[in-house]
Amino acid sequence: MLAELSVFPLDKGVEGLSRYVAESIRIIEESGLDYEVHALGTLIEGPTDKVFEVISKCHENMVLHSDRVVTYVKIDDRKGARGRIKGKVRSVEEKLGRDVPKG
Amino acid sequence: MLAELSVFPLDKGVEGLSRYVAESIRIIEESGLDYEVHALGTLIEGPTDKVFEVISKCHENMVLHSDRVVTYVKIDDRKGARGRIKGKVRSVEEKLGRDVPKG
Amino acid sequence: MLAELSVFPLDKGVEGLSRYVAESIRIIEESGLDYEVHALGTLIEGPTDKVFEVISKCHENMVLHSDRVVTYVKIDDRKGARGRIKGKVRSVEEKLGRDVPKG
Amino acid sequence: MLAELSVFPLDKGVEGLSRYVAESIRIIEESGLDYEVHALGTLIEGPTDKVFEVISKCHENMVLHSDRVVTYVKIDDRKGARGRIKGKVRSVEEKLGRDVPKG
Repeated sequence: MLAELSVFPLDKGVEGLSRYVAESIRIIEESGLDYEVHALGTLIEGPTDKVFEVISKCHENMVLHSDRVVTYVKIDDRKGARGRIKGKVRSVEEKLGRDVPKG
Repeated sequence: MLAELSVFPLDKGVEGLSRYVAESIRIIEESGLDYEVHALGTLIEGPTDKVFEVISKCHENMVLHSDRVVTYVKIDDRKGARGRIKGKVRSVEEKLGRDVPKG
Repeated sequence: MLAELSVFPLDKGVEGLSRYVAESIRIIEESGLDYEVHALGTLIEGPTDKVFEVISKCHENMVLHSDRVVTYVKIDDRKGARGRIKGKVRSVEEKLGRDVPKG
Repeated sequence: MLAELSVFPLDKGVEGLSRYVAESIRIIEESGLDYEVHALGTLIEGPTDKVFEVISKCHENMVLHSDRVVTYVKIDDRKGARGRIKGKVRSVEEKLGRDVPKG
């Protein structure tokens, strides 16, 4: 399945959230799952149980650093579909007949 | 922690999603966790691992019924806080000095 | 249409977000639209333009108080449907054959 | 401000949502705002009023095609910040000391 994850601490002020995001990226990287980073979250693709596992790991890791953690998850789970991180954007580009701005 | 969950099938058309929502509610009810239903999701409160477990169960159950499932999760995890499903709304009411419309 | 809104400042620490939520509620109340508060957001129902107007007002008001504002909006817009803040939950209760915990 | 938008019809079944996404991209492109497409949404950056305007246009356009439209918006509005679609990812890469997978 394909998921988008964003996890951030509410008690660190306005600056320097990128070092916390970097920690989540390290955890996702270690999972071995396909992923892609954008400005407001990270896309993760893989088997349902593995994706939920890495999501909860990222959340629990942030809880170690912060007294209040906000986590958002958006899942689009299409039966039998693979390679959707790139494939869904390509499919939109085919409909448009041109490339779109990407990360 | 406190989470909001919404899970729905994308291939069932415009009508009759309530029977799929009802299935999720049954799964949440069986978990024994505190929960509250509103028009655009269900709030669930409990230990992190238990809440993630019931979220993934609801998602996996919907996958049995649908070839494309969309799931949204919003988590607000505040250290040591309990009873927040009711408590957070009461806290806003105290600030306002009056009751607000609730479910 | 039916929308769920949550708006919060990222630079106020872990405590006392309820007074900021209370400000949003006041703005929504003044709009005259139907609304309902729960622990992780506020449901708002009304004509599309009015709902977007109140959402942007709540966001812009929070920007006056904070150097970093996070806003989440979830919309479920079903043609011709009214009274969905209460109606959708009732519909789930009919499917279940019993009441569910509400706000 | 920086926003992420996803808009989709609930009554078109499991296939062929990309043509609807393509319509939103066209509307965003015409706005002249900076944007970037990923597999689960489109990032849009610009002045608050312009971004809300294009979001409501995308939603209202989808309502023309569908009897039930679901729209999700995530906003991260940081005072005085610009160029965040690319800048936020670069900032994470600096913390990690390496590139991350991007779109």
